[in-house]
Amino acid sequence: MSYFRPEIDAMDGYTPGFQPKGAGYVKLNTNENPYPPSPRAVEAMRATIGDGLRKYPDPMADAFRAKAAEVLGTVPGRILCANGSDELLNMAIRSFCGEGGRIAFATPTYSLYDVLVRIQGAEPVAVDFPEDYGLPSDLARTGARLTLLCNPNAPSGTLIPPDQVAGLAAQVEGVLLVDEAYVDFADANCLGLVDRCPNVVVARSFSKSYSLAGLRFGYAVAQEPLIEGMAKVKDSYNVDAVAIAGATAALGDQEWLRRNVARIKATRARLSAGLEGLGFRCWPSQTNFVLARAPQPLSARELHDELFERKVLVRYFDAPRLDDCLRISVGSEEETDVLLGALETIVATAQASGDD
Amino acid sequence: MSYFRPEIDAMDGYTPGFQPKGAGYVKLNTNENPYPPSPRAVEAMRATIGDGLRKYPDPMADAFRAKAAEVLGTVPGRILCANGSDELLNMAIRSFCGEGGRIAFATPTYSLYDVLVRIQGAEPVAVDFPEDYGLPSDLARTGARLTLLCNPNAPSGTLIPPDQVAGLAAQVEGVLLVDEAYVDFADANCLGLVDRCPNVVVARSFSKSYSLAGLRFGYAVAQEPLIEGMAKVKDSYNVDAVAIAGATAALGDQEWLRRNVARIKATRARLSAGLEGLGFRCWPSQTNFVLARAPQPLSARELHDELFERKVLVRYFDAPRLDDCLRISVGSEEETDVLLGALETIVATAQASGDD
Repeated sequence: MSYFRPEIDAMDGYTPGFQPKGAGYVKLNTNENPYPPSPRAVEAMRATIGDGLRKYPDPMADAFRAKAAEVLGTVPGRILCANGSDELLNMAIRSFCGEGGRIAFATPTYSLYDVLVRIQGAEPVAVDFPEDYGLPSDLARTGARLTLLCNPNAPSGTLIPPDQVAGLAAQVEGVLLVDEAYVDFADANCLGLVDRCPNVVVARSFSKSYSLAGLRFGYAVAQEPLIEGMAKVKDSYNVDAVAIAGATAALGDQEWLRRNVARIKATRARLSAGLEGLGFRCWPSQTNFVLARAPQPLSARELHDELFERKVLVRYFDAPRLDDCLRISVGSEEETDVLLGALETIVATAQASGDD
Repeated sequence: MSYFRPEIDAMDGYTPGFQPKGAGYVKLNTNENPYPPSPRAVEAMRATIGDGLRKYPDPMADAFRAKAAEVLGTVPGRILCANGSDELLNMAIRSFCGEGGRIAFATPTYSLYDVLVRIQGAEPVAVDFPEDYGLPSDLARTGARLTLLCNPNAPSGTLIPPDQVAGLAAQVEGVLLVDEAYVDFADANCLGLVDRCPNVVVARSFSKSYSLAGLRFGYAVAQEPLIEGMAKVKDSYNVDAVAIAGATAALGDQEWLRRNVARIKATRARLSAGLEGLGFRCWPSQTNFVLARAPQPLSARELHDELFERKVLVRYFDAPRLDDCLRISVGSEEETDVLLGALETIVATAQASGDD
C-alpha cells in the first residue's frame, strides 16, 4: 500500500530545464535573462541581509503592493504576491477548482499546468492550439472552473491579442488566469482586462524580464474579491524579506527593464533571422525565446544533443507538435553568436553527410 | 455564484501574529529569535546577491541537502527543502490526503493545521490533548491518512518523548509528520525515528533557532520514497538562491546555534519563574516561548490589550483552553525585563483595584 494519493503515485512530476552545476555552458534552455538585475534591486536586497531577517516578513508584502499599484496604475488591494508565478498558478487552482473539477488550457503550452491540475486531482481539459497558435474557439466552451492561458504562450512565443482574450473572459464560465510571465517582451498585455472582468487574474513573473529567476517572485493582478480569496489559500509568509525588497526595487527601475528588454528584442530578431537562414521555421516570438522547427530531415533531438556536446543548452520537448522543434532562449549577443555558429556547423555537416 | 470552491468561501484563512510596521515594540508575539543570524549566513547571502540571480536556483537545493546530511548524519536523498516549514505541511497534506480524507492532530496546537486541511477539502480530526499536553492515546486510532504532531507543541511548549512518538508512528495507519519547528530548544528530538519508521516525516524550520524567519526556509527528513513523492508535489523552484545559501551556511554554524539556544533557554527559565512569581501558571517549555495561564481573576485578553498599549506584543488566542492564557516568546534579557516589569505593574494595579 502506498502512503501517497493515487494521483501522486500516477504522475511523474514536472521536469525543470537542465540546470548545469559546472561553468562554461551557453545556457539558452530556461529563458533566463542574459543581463543582470537592476543595481537598485541588488542594493535593496543587500540592505535587507542582516539582523532584521530574524523577524518574519510582511505576510502581504505591502511595500511591493504599493509600488506595483503606482507603476501599474491600480490599487494595492488588487495585487497579490507569490513565491514565483508558479505559486500563483497553484494558488489559483486550489482556490477555484476541487477534485474532479475541470481546468482548461490550450496546448502545447507550459507543461507545468497539466502537472498542477493532476496534483489537485482535477481534470485537465486540453484544447489544441491551431498551427499558428491563435486562440482556439473551443477554449471558451469547456465549462471549466478555471482556464489557464499562457500569453505570450510558452513554448510557442506567440501572443493572442488582448481584445480576443477579453472575448474569452466574457465567454468562460469560471475564472480566466492569463499567465503573463513573458509579457514584458510583447507588444501588448492584458492588464486592462482586470478593470472590466471580475473573473480575470493576470499573473506576472520577475524571472524573465527582471533577471531575478533566482529570487522567486511573482504577483497577480485581479479585482479585490479574487485577491482576497486567493490570499486565504497562500502560505502565511510566502515571500521572504529579501525577495520583497528586491522585487520592489526592481519594479521601481522601469528604465533598467526597458533597456534590457530592448536589447533582447533586437537580439531576438537577429536570432530568428539567423535560424531561418539555416532553414529553421520560427514562430513569431513575443517572448525572450524562439520556437524553431528544425529543417527537414534533421532531427531536433539530435540537434539538441549535438549542441549539448558543445555545451550549448537549448530546450527539447519530447511531446506532440514539439518534438521537431527547439526552444531557444534569447541570450546575449555573444551567446547568440556561439549558438548560431554551432548550429551552422552541425547543419552543414549533416547536409554534407546527407549529400554523400 | 462564487468563483471559489465552497471550502474556500467557508473559511477565514490563517491569521498570522501581528507584524507591526513601526518601531519601538517589544515583540514577543511570533516566537522570533531575539539574536541575529549567524554572520556566516549573512556573508553567504550577501555573496549570492548579484548577477547570478538572473538564473534559476537549484530545484532540489543540493548544496543544502549535502550539508544537512553531514550535520544530521543522514544522506542527501532523505532531505527535502521548502519555502518555510509551512510549505512542508502543505506538501505533505497534498501528497498524502485528498478531498474527504482524514487528517488528525491533537489540539490545542498550531492553528494553521486546521486551515491547511480545510483548504485541501480534507476532514480535520482533532483529538484533545490532556491538561498536561501528554500524548492522547486516541491519536493513534483515527484512521487518518496523515497525522500531524507539533513536537514540541505550539502553543503549549511541551514535548512528547521520542519513544512515545515512535509508538504513535507504529500504530497510525498513514504518515506521521512530526513538526519540529521548535526542537532546537528541546531536550530531545525525533530524527532517530526516520531510520526505523518508513511513515515518519520530520519537519524543521530556520525561523526560530536559526534567526531566519524573514528568509523562509525549512526542510523535511524522511526515507527516500516519501521524499521522492513529496518532491513531485513541490513547486519546481520552491526555494530561492539566497535562502539556499543562507540556510546552508547557517546549518554549518552549529556553534552559533548552540550559543543562542543556550542564552534563550536561560532567559526562558527566568521568564517562567518571573511569570509564576506574578501568579501565572506556566507549562514546562521546551521551546522559545512560554504558555502562561493568567492569575485568576485577571482576564488574559485584557492583559494582552494592556501590554499592547505599552507596545509589548504577546500572543492571545481567542480559542477553547487558550483564552485564559498568554503565549509569550522568549526575547532578549532586556525585552524580558520590560515584559515582566509591565506585567508586574498591570497585575499590581488590577489587584489594588480589586481590593477596593
